[in-house]
Amino acid sequence: MPDDTADPGRALLALVVRLFPICRSITGEGVRQTLAILREHIDMAVREVPTGTQVFDWTVPQEWSVRCATLRTASGRTVADFAACNLHLVSYSEPVSRRLSFEELKPHLHTLPDQPDLIPYRTSYYRRDWGFCLRHRDYLALPDEDYDVFIDTELRDGALAYGEVFLPGETEREVLFSAHICHPSLANDNCSGLAVLTMLAKALSQRRNRFSYRFLFAPGTIGALCWLAANEERVRCVDHGLVVSCIGDGGGPVYKRSRRGDATIDRVMEAVRCDGRRAAMVDFSPYGYDERQFCSPGFNLPIGLLQRSAFGTFPQYHTSADNLDFVRPEHLASSFRMMLDIVDVLESDWVPLNLSPKGEPQLGRRGLYSATGGHTVTSDVTMGYLWVLNLADGEHSLLDIARRSGLSFRDIAHAAARLKESGLLAEAA
Amino acid sequence: MPDDTADPGRALLALVVRLFPICRSITGEGVRQTLAILREHIDMAVREVPTGTQVFDWTVPQEWSVRCATLRTASGRTVADFAACNLHLVSYSEPVSRRLSFEELKPHLHTLPDQPDLIPYRTSYYRRDWGFCLRHRDYLALPDEDYDVFIDTELRDGALAYGEVFLPGETEREVLFSAHICHPSLANDNCSGLAVLTMLAKALSQRRNRFSYRFLFAPGTIGALCWLAANEERVRCVDHGLVVSCIGDGGGPVYKRSRRGDATIDRVMEAVRCDGRRAAMVDFSPYGYDERQFCSPGFNLPIGLLQRSAFGTFPQYHTSADNLDFVRPEHLASSFRMMLDIVDVLESDWVPLNLSPKGEPQLGRRGLYSATGGHTVTSDVTMGYLWVLNLADGEHSLLDIARRSGLSFRDIAHAAARLKESGLLAEAA
Amino acid sequence: MPDDTADPGRALLALVVRLFPICRSITGEGVRQTLAILREHIDMAVREVPTGTQVFDWTVPQEWSVRCATLRTASGRTVADFAACNLHLVSYSEPVSRRLSFEELKPHLHTLPDQPDLIPYRTSYYRRDWGFCLRHRDYLALPDEDYDVFIDTELRDGALAYGEVFLPGETEREVLFSAHICHPSLANDNCSGLAVLTMLAKALSQRRNRFSYRFLFAPGTIGALCWLAANEERVRCVDHGLVVSCIGDGGGPVYKRSRRGDATIDRVMEAVRCDGRRAAMVDFSPYGYDERQFCSPGFNLPIGLLQRSAFGTFPQYHTSADNLDFVRPEHLASSFRMMLDIVDVLESDWVPLNLSPKGEPQLGRRGLYSATGGHTVTSDVTMGYLWVLNLADGEHSLLDIARRSGLSFRDIAHAAARLKESGLLAEAA
Repeated sequence: MPDDTADPGRALLALVVRLFPICRSITGEGVRQTLAILREHIDMAVREVPTGTQVFDWTVPQEWSVRCATLRTASGRTVADFAACNLHLVSYSEPVSRRLSFEELKPHLHTLPDQPDLIPYRTSYYRRDWGFCLRHRDYLALPDEDYDVFIDTELRDGALAYGEVFLPGETEREVLFSAHICHPSLANDNCSGLAVLTMLAKALSQRRNRFSYRFLFAPGTIGALCWLAANEERVRCVDHGLVVSCIGDGGGPVYKRSRRGDATIDRVMEAVRCDGRRAAMVDFSPYGYDERQFCSPGFNLPIGLLQRSAFGTFPQYHTSADNLDFVRPEHLASSFRMMLDIVDVLESDWVPLNLSPKGEPQLGRRGLYSATGGHTVTSDVTMGYLWVLNLADGEHSLLDIARRSGLSFRDIAHAAARLKESGLLAEAA
Repeated sequence: MPDDTADPGRALLALVVRLFPICRSITGEGVRQTLAILREHIDMAVREVPTGTQVFDWTVPQEWSVRCATLRTASGRTVADFAACNLHLVSYSEPVSRRLSFEELKPHLHTLPDQPDLIPYRTSYYRRDWGFCLRHRDYLALPDEDYDVFIDTELRDGALAYGEVFLPGETEREVLFSAHICHPSLANDNCSGLAVLTMLAKALSQRRNRFSYRFLFAPGTIGALCWLAANEERVRCVDHGLVVSCIGDGGGPVYKRSRRGDATIDRVMEAVRCDGRRAAMVDFSPYGYDERQFCSPGFNLPIGLLQRSAFGTFPQYHTSADNLDFVRPEHLASSFRMMLDIVDVLESDWVPLNLSPKGEPQLGRRGLYSATGGHTVTSDVTMGYLWVLNLADGEHSLLDIARRSGLSFRDIAHAAARLKESGLLAEAA
Repeated sequence: MPDDTADPGRALLALVVRLFPICRSITGEGVRQTLAILREHIDMAVREVPTGTQVFDWTVPQEWSVRCATLRTASGRTVADFAACNLHLVSYSEPVSRRLSFEELKPHLHTLPDQPDLIPYRTSYYRRDWGFCLRHRDYLALPDEDYDVFIDTELRDGALAYGEVFLPGETEREVLFSAHICHPSLANDNCSGLAVLTMLAKALSQRRNRFSYRFLFAPGTIGALCWLAANEERVRCVDHGLVVSCIGDGGGPVYKRSRRGDATIDRVMEAVRCDGRRAAMVDFSPYGYDERQFCSPGFNLPIGLLQRSAFGTFPQYHTSADNLDFVRPEHLASSFRMMLDIVDVLESDWVPLNLSPKGEPQLGRRGLYSATGGHTVTSDVTMGYLWVLNLADGEHSLLDIARRSGLSFRDIAHAAARLKESGLLAEAA
């Protein structure tokens, strides 16, 4: 097996390719099939929440399954076939088998007039309905005749499934990473997020961590609510977190801050880079993915949203163009490395205390300072020592020091480690 | 009688036209005549403060009245006549009847060399003096001969008059609106303010209000001090307020913040529009109109200054060009509507509490969310619901939510009302 | 003797000219000779700290003295001679007398390839070493032959000397000014600082001051640490301070804030001007001069760094081009006047309390307000009165009021003085 961490792009893309064809929705076998594939990489609990379970203001819906779905002209020409592309069928469509006039059919057809070659993605989760999504170009060519609708779906009591990985660390304080698992054949949104978090969980499971890490692979909204309802007390342990989606394209990164706006994770995201680029920082807004639930006022968790291109801003979003051509192994790899960097910052941040706080300690006799004086330029390494010592008053974390100094977190963490080895720093109580 | 609210421009201009010719000053009949006209529209108390009354560091001055005032050459040509334009006479000029040489006269003449066709407005309230204000063009043509000055004015013990309208609301917490009434024939400064506040008082008197509203029509500085001295305890009830002047031209609006800088009224003024334009926000400074008194350190009331064009910045300011051509009914109307909007924000602001704060409540089953999912764009209506629910933690008013969301106060207030009807919100205690 | 304050440039330059040739280092006779010259102008204590004394994490080093130092080719041509320019010898070079091959010599030669005509300044204080500093142009012309190194220096137990001037004021709260005294023939860095602080001490010694003033003329780092170690309790009295260096050239001024960032001295430096220019404000960083020690976390004193051109940014920095041509009497004079202005702000700042805080007091009857009203423009003098009265609530110093009003500190201080004379202000308790 290749080393996923060294060249993670290939393994990540392979996982995306396997997940892409599955017809996922907020319930049903698609989610279970997806979780089964993820479990080939990482030990994961699969939770099943029965239909009808009350979760806060919501009720877990019935399970939805699709055998087939076709839209044909009365003369027998196939207009849309679920088997060809699962986006053709509005998700959660109820079963239908009837002939309709074109006028009766029209309200059930969804197209994108501005993107006539793309099939849109549409859902009708919480109102019983049915429909087909078409290329607008095909829609315009439809003859005014009768149509045969055959949707062989089933809505029945069952359960909502979600996956949960928990990696215990040295403390019970935890980091929560979450990716929605409810979208059908959309590669970036969110096969990419599922793949990157799975491989990240695998990587973290192979090492010893200070924090505990939790990974959620749950259907959007209702899945996050199910987890929150089952963990109302536990969420107090969540110190940091990210919702991850649309992480396989070459844009961004874009980070939407937590509702708090000044959480540690919000500052971590200022410190990391992806392909050398800082994340564009966007203030919290209550629309998006499951940060909507995690950051609702009753929880207000320190969780932001990480994406490459932000949802709704790229033309492929929620269309058939969000396919396997849109995500690239190098982008999946750089997103994965950024996630590792985020974890590294969280793991290696600490609050140093200068044990020799009156004046500078003599760095030269410890080999930490240039022996020859008078040079115009000072190295980042020296500046790292000086900044850490100067701000090591017990009120600044390494992340704070990196931010104020303008040096990288890596440089500051390295300087602090050397100073600690030299006996000049202790960890603040 | 026409509906002033629907087409307020005509009625406002008519009132300005009636007020314009009157020779007002800080005391005297001009103020009483002005109050009498305003009282045709709204029930108003007229307060009389006797000459000699001590108000803080000041003393109420004598009443000033003018019968006539002319400046003539010895050869009998009239150079300036108060009857033609009351700006010709320096306000509060003492009585004079004598012949002077041109050299003796010169220190008593005031002109605007940079605006040679305009008569300036000048006063000498607190030092006994007299003078005439001339077009600089006319001044340059004056012959070097003797002049006859005849100023038939009177300064005698009497009283300072000001008008006060109080509209009790559901609470004793009050909003104070104030316009200075001491300027003679200057249309924008401040016949416009007097007219707009009178019509606003009339409109508010015809409806039920949460706040109590107080309107002051008082001479600048000394009038405001008289009211403050008579209401030293009462001012604790003032939660919000505006000084209003120069509100009939087409500029601005310009809002000068209260001394506090972060009072609710300061944030309200960020939220309202006039003819679709935001107000230019200017920090407090201790020069201007009666906000100088209301915002003195001993009171520090949450009161700002609202204008269209800011005093001192438009060429007509304090000249004969601030006439009936300068104010327009459509500007008076848009200023009036802005005042109504300000009142609406104050009246309809409240602090919501999300009764379902853990996760989002299910808006779809309440008809508050699109039934079909997957669209790229979310409506402002939906965003309003989401923002209100997310920030309804008892620490954000609707105004706060509007500010943070970037949505209009109207949209946020509408969303909050719908959510309250749906049982999802309560008013925070 | 000329009046140094009226035309300080001449006297300052004369002092720089006398100090320039001396070979200073962190210890040795050069420092004592320098202090002796400064003592011709101001009564100064000379402190001697014995070699081996422990100061915090450091030990006072041995005294270094130089008799002569030459580098010659084996054929007898002189390449570098300490007598010609003391920068040729690496400061603190140990004694050497031997013949070396060119290859053996090379690691001991220091040049500036980008500035081939300049001799660099180099030190090796805390590691026993020796070396010569050469023009790169001369270095390139060196023949590949043997060289005779003769460095007749001595390192022996003795003492570190520094100078200290203390001028008691009305209170024991003190202002600390400090200039490093350890650099050899570098005119701007820091003969300029030594000269300006000496003349400032002289000027302040001739007047009565509210604050006590302390002036330190100490070797960089170890000298400041010696003073701090001897005054660990006393530093609690330091309310304000500046490290002063590179103050004789025509750039800047540049002010580096104290570690606190919002100390009074940081705001004073926003208020003063040098040759009409505001100081460029730079945030604290832990590299530079002795602010590194004063602002270490165990002291965190309210002390910033004042320079004209910032160290490391001008091409003459730490080279033989930092000579007597680089500093100019007019720049020394403007820096000196800026220092006097800084002292004036510190001395004359106070917190006023408006004794008539309800409304404006009547300025007109006190001769503090224009008798004629109606003008468009208000004078800075009037605005000064209004701002001081408005903010004289006991929570704003004159410096605060100057900052918020945008008026100069001088105008605000003048207005406050007039208002206090008029009985309208008291000093807040």
